[in-house]
Amino acid sequence: MLLFLIFLLATACAGATGFVFPTGSWYVGLTKPAWTPPNWAFPVAWTLLYLLMAFAGARVAGIGGPGATTALAFWALQIAANALWTPVVFGAHRLRLGVGVIALLFVAVLCAAVAHWRVSPLAGLALLPYLAWVGFAGALNLALVRLNPGERG
Amino acid sequence: MLLFLIFLLATACAGATGFVFPTGSWYVGLTKPAWTPPNWAFPVAWTLLYLLMAFAGARVAGIGGPGATTALAFWALQIAANALWTPVVFGAHRLRLGVGVIALLFVAVLCAAVAHWRVSPLAGLALLPYLAWVGFAGALNLALVRLNPGERG
Repeated sequence: MLLFLIFLLATACAGATGFVFPTGSWYVGLTKPAWTPPNWAFPVAWTLLYLLMAFAGARVAGIGGPGATTALAFWALQIAANALWTPVVFGAHRLRLGVGVIALLFVAVLCAAVAHWRVSPLAGLALLPYLAWVGFAGALNLALVRLNPGERG
Repeated sequence: MLLFLIFLLATACAGATGFVFPTGSWYVGLTKPAWTPPNWAFPVAWTLLYLLMAFAGARVAGIGGPGATTALAFWALQIAANALWTPVVFGAHRLRLGVGVIALLFVAVLCAAVAHWRVSPLAGLALLPYLAWVGFAGALNLALVRLNPGERG
């Protein structure tokens, strides 16, 4: 339970970036693809994903064993990349750099999911919705780059 | 070595916030205490601290054992809080919120240092300069709040 709370607090730090840099007039003014989700979908999705992330990390940390520390190294990498993406895109308005960060995040989550699976298949599965969402958010970020060529990198 | 690189990449994500939000005219215009370090000291200090952090995480992950996963949970928490602080202060210019974030970061680094020490005293020691620097940066952040009462929260 303590482990779960430590990991949850780490996700809260990453999630806090969404409150510090809310989607304001800059985002409203961007040309967006037709499949852009409504604004309310983002905090709902992230809340669920952060809970799953904390569950996965706590489960692997609780089980331990030889593969657990590698899995948690990837867990640390994904939360750092996760915390970086929102400030880059919604704080600094750097869409192209955002694509680079989310590509790194995707690879980090993929590695984390595989490494978690090896310790606990349930923990690995818990990261799959996150992987899917990051893939989707990456596609959206890339579409925003293409549809808004005048935006800075 | 792979573990070291994973942790180093995580610190690079946190450190990237310093490039995305450089100290610009807003920071120059703040009233600062006499003991404020010169600007060049910050990237130098952080580079050294990030290397020590990655060393500490990799050493604990490499040794493993019962206390290692708890130590790495705190490692993940500290890097998430670390990645949040720069965007809050230098991106959103929220000095008071910055004090809250750096207080959380200080507690996270303290817990991480103790938990790392239990697995490997060398890894615990490697986090002490980081703890000292965060204490110093927190005092600086607090001084900036007091010297610039007109700044937003």
